[in-house]
Amino acid sequence: MLRTHTCGELNISHLGQTVTLCGWVQKSRDLGGTTFIDVRDRYGLTQLVLNTDSDAALRDTGRKLGREFVVKVTGNVLERTNKNPKIPTGDIEIAVEALEILNEAKIPPFLIEDETDGGEELRAKYRYLDLRRNPIRNNLMLRHKMAQEVRKYLDGLDFIEVETPVLIKSTPEGARDFVVPSRMNQGEFYALPQSPQTFKQLLMVSGFDRYFQIVKCFRDEDLRADRQPEFTQIDCEMSFIEQEDILNIFEGMARHLFKTVKGVELDEFPRMQYADAMRLYGSDKPDVRFGMQFVELNDTVKGKGFGVFDNAELVVGINAKGAASYTRKQLDELTEWLKRPQIGATGLIYMRHNDDGSLKSSVDKFYNEEELQKWSAAFDTKPGDLVLVLAGLTDKVRKQLNELRLEMGSRLGLRSKDVFAPLWVLDFPLLEFDEESGRYHAMHHPFTSPKPEDITMLDTNPGAVRANAYDMVINGIEVGGGSIRIYDRELQSLMFKHLGFTPEEAQKQFGFLMDAFEFGAPPHGGIAFGFDRLCSIFAGLDSIRDVMAFPKNNSGRDVMIDAPATISEAQLQELSIKTIV
Amino acid sequence: MLRTHTCGELNISHLGQTVTLCGWVQKSRDLGGTTFIDVRDRYGLTQLVLNTDSDAALRDTGRKLGREFVVKVTGNVLERTNKNPKIPTGDIEIAVEALEILNEAKIPPFLIEDETDGGEELRAKYRYLDLRRNPIRNNLMLRHKMAQEVRKYLDGLDFIEVETPVLIKSTPEGARDFVVPSRMNQGEFYALPQSPQTFKQLLMVSGFDRYFQIVKCFRDEDLRADRQPEFTQIDCEMSFIEQEDILNIFEGMARHLFKTVKGVELDEFPRMQYADAMRLYGSDKPDVRFGMQFVELNDTVKGKGFGVFDNAELVVGINAKGAASYTRKQLDELTEWLKRPQIGATGLIYMRHNDDGSLKSSVDKFYNEEELQKWSAAFDTKPGDLVLVLAGLTDKVRKQLNELRLEMGSRLGLRSKDVFAPLWVLDFPLLEFDEESGRYHAMHHPFTSPKPEDITMLDTNPGAVRANAYDMVINGIEVGGGSIRIYDRELQSLMFKHLGFTPEEAQKQFGFLMDAFEFGAPPHGGIAFGFDRLCSIFAGLDSIRDVMAFPKNNSGRDVMIDAPATISEAQLQELSIKTIV
Repeated sequence: MLRTHTCGELNISHLGQTVTLCGWVQKSRDLGGTTFIDVRDRYGLTQLVLNTDSDAALRDTGRKLGREFVVKVTGNVLERTNKNPKIPTGDIEIAVEALEILNEAKIPPFLIEDETDGGEELRAKYRYLDLRRNPIRNNLMLRHKMAQEVRKYLDGLDFIEVETPVLIKSTPEGARDFVVPSRMNQGEFYALPQSPQTFKQLLMVSGFDRYFQIVKCFRDEDLRADRQPEFTQIDCEMSFIEQEDILNIFEGMARHLFKTVKGVELDEFPRMQYADAMRLYGSDKPDVRFGMQFVELNDTVKGKGFGVFDNAELVVGINAKGAASYTRKQLDELTEWLKRPQIGATGLIYMRHNDDGSLKSSVDKFYNEEELQKWSAAFDTKPGDLVLVLAGLTDKVRKQLNELRLEMGSRLGLRSKDVFAPLWVLDFPLLEFDEESGRYHAMHHPFTSPKPEDITMLDTNPGAVRANAYDMVINGIEVGGGSIRIYDRELQSLMFKHLGFTPEEAQKQFGFLMDAFEFGAPPHGGIAFGFDRLCSIFAGLDSIRDVMAFPKNNSGRDVMIDAPATISEAQLQELSIKTIV
Repeated sequence: MLRTHTCGELNISHLGQTVTLCGWVQKSRDLGGTTFIDVRDRYGLTQLVLNTDSDAALRDTGRKLGREFVVKVTGNVLERTNKNPKIPTGDIEIAVEALEILNEAKIPPFLIEDETDGGEELRAKYRYLDLRRNPIRNNLMLRHKMAQEVRKYLDGLDFIEVETPVLIKSTPEGARDFVVPSRMNQGEFYALPQSPQTFKQLLMVSGFDRYFQIVKCFRDEDLRADRQPEFTQIDCEMSFIEQEDILNIFEGMARHLFKTVKGVELDEFPRMQYADAMRLYGSDKPDVRFGMQFVELNDTVKGKGFGVFDNAELVVGINAKGAASYTRKQLDELTEWLKRPQIGATGLIYMRHNDDGSLKSSVDKFYNEEELQKWSAAFDTKPGDLVLVLAGLTDKVRKQLNELRLEMGSRLGLRSKDVFAPLWVLDFPLLEFDEESGRYHAMHHPFTSPKPEDITMLDTNPGAVRANAYDMVINGIEVGGGSIRIYDRELQSLMFKHLGFTPEEAQKQFGFLMDAFEFGAPPHGGIAFGFDRLCSIFAGLDSIRDVMAFPKNNSGRDVMIDAPATISEAQLQELSIKTIV
């Protein structure tokens, strides 16, 4: 090793020792005869002292140093006169005897500090410099620790990590595939997996019983903050279990992670029916760090001559506790915010519960004090509360009010990143109707089993069929989802039929799985976690980008290596493809 | 859980307990009023007893059972009268009270037993059934354990696992890339990584210091037993180290794996210069489970009128100890084996050291007893030994003799799969001349540093420049290789120049890395292990296929899912590509 210690480990117990450190120059202060240099590595920061008066060689080398130079120093560990209690090495400094420049550095294009002056594009191009900053390095160290703890937990429960293939077959169901032209099988393509779903089910047929994999998956979709073309799943599957077993084991995993990685002890996760989540939060991934549940008002407000409410399929509102002080201007601004096309509300009705106990609504013309008392009772308002009400078609108005609820939660400081509120959402619908294609799609995926008691509705009322499907939600973010699978060829064929596959198409695409079900398939089910998202929640980030070492931008480009890029004519020819641009 | 216990855990301590097991019917024997059934899961095998006389329902269900049916049984744990000491559950059996068929099974196309009757193609098509067989399942469990232990060891030494991207950029250096057309960047392609080489070096520039990753890599090469289009590496890199540190830490890792996974304590690994490996074994990955080192005979045999030797650049042989009993027929057969085009020798000279002490060669005409005594001395022969000698151009004859040595080692039983003989091969050449392209190629890769004392030879004698490069070899198989890297822009540019890149080409392909070297790159180096090969050595297999869950065949096809396959016209259009077949 070029060093004897790291820049993070020396303390008062090392006094008098001669040590050698390697690292990057964080900053340098020349105080006449003495130069102080902070040298940094992954483990911390150590202060060096160069007595430049007494040692000319040291002085000359010291003068050449710039930010981010890589140095190797040998010297004695001394007690500092000015101690720095903020860092673990703050009690000591190194009296440098030998200083070697291992590599020089040009001035970095942005500051390598916790708060940097670099813009997003610039930091992406020099990602290797951005990764030197503590916050980003800490995210990746957190991610490493989380992966280790996931493996420790699952290995301890006899789960086996099995690597499934990356070069597989394109399937029409689900999102868009990335494909890979095959040179050896001309005109044919592999696809990169969107998940190892069918392979993990086959492993259950093989008797593997408890499988997991922390695995890269791929989706060629348009990108946003929490989506990347390649992402990582904690993919899990079990045999001879019921839904309850999956919930317990993976709630245990989440609890283990919170405890070992963040030192947070979580209570038992609440459970909520999908239907209740939609009714009370307008979302299948409610943020339950705060209440502010939806209150439906149809029975309370209809028939008083207010057309907006009378004509609405649903009138529903929330009580933003303590927000009665919102001014008219703030409420107008909130109304405009709701009317933006991203949300699309037509208007906002409100009622203040004033500090003096009086009730004041924006629709006083239609609702007198007595009527408003009913509102107050429905929302259980107290003086200082603000009731916000939307009206319209049920699905739309729930979505809009969900947005409003989250916004008010943020404005009222109810969504701290240091609070973790997990829950299970259960009993998702099996199918959802897709307006564009005019047919039902699998809400989870085509291998999800319907609740046995609902199967008869597949023909009569497909949208009402519930699935044995569940999501784990933390702080309003879906971190994991899964289901109990179909393991019977007949039922799987029936599902494909309802998803619009001809028997031939089903056989061509998924024949291998349906064939496998005929050779002794055990009852099984599983779950997959979005590992990037889970890491970003643990790191207190909104985006998954900074829990990835080398993320891509919104155009799917890695601007550091400049990929994707054109390839040579010879490569195209070998692959028997042509580009048409 | 559908079960209370697994099929592998019940023993005499569970007597009298009522248990529920799930598993697959391995076999069933109907003995009149009693039926014995072996039920199997991943953990083992348990014997069930059905009293079919007393329970008609049980009898009826029991009669339906076929091989590989999935069942759930509840019953009492009894002591067996006929114990089976070969299995952990051999002392007990279950007196079945309830038997439920969870799923039926068609008759499998081959026997699900340790020794199967299924051919390779059939087993590949029904891989999910082949994976039920103990030997293959054990391989995958071994692989899981090895991966866990690798992570435990490296995590314990402060290595951080960082995921690097799978969608990167195609580079002309090295093997052929798999490419992925980009929909969002039309006419452009990602490439799948052959290794995360440049990314791990950038992580060193970022200060990560100790990186590893167990990671899928991809090469679009023609396939054979130990090559798959996708394979897994244990990829590692360290900063502020010298070659010695890498050798120690990763020798430690190999030793840790052998100890924890196989219970084998290995001695310190021998080290050998590349030049010595070539001279003594004719291979850069010598199998040192046995000696039989090359002995060069130029000084001993030339000038005696035997043209084959006189005209040869190198005369070299081995002593196959104890093989003097080889008959003339066997020796002729060995000669034919050597003359096959795969090896290409022109002939084989031999000398027997007979049991009576006499020496007898196939070239007695040119070498009398006195001369043969010199041969005997050179090879240190004893009665019973057989000396085998080849002659020709140095590089060719060494390759041929390497093949002969390995063959003789196998024939003489010197290559047991239960013996593990590791070594380090050091100081590889930096460059090797490629006849086809008429230029030098990087022997390891373009980022490998030359030995400082050899740099001046880059212009005068490029082939003689040694690199700071090393391989770990076990039983004649290269399991890992690495190098100390270049971390200086100038030297890296010089390397690219010698590899035939123009400065523009170098900047276009690897500019990001050379730029990074200018912002404070630390001295660094690393190693990558072929995880599949390492697993296959631990499993005692010749092929890497059976340490992978879903390998591809020699045409790069997954015959189970039938991939690759054609994709739709719509997909091609979205990607702006056309196939030309």
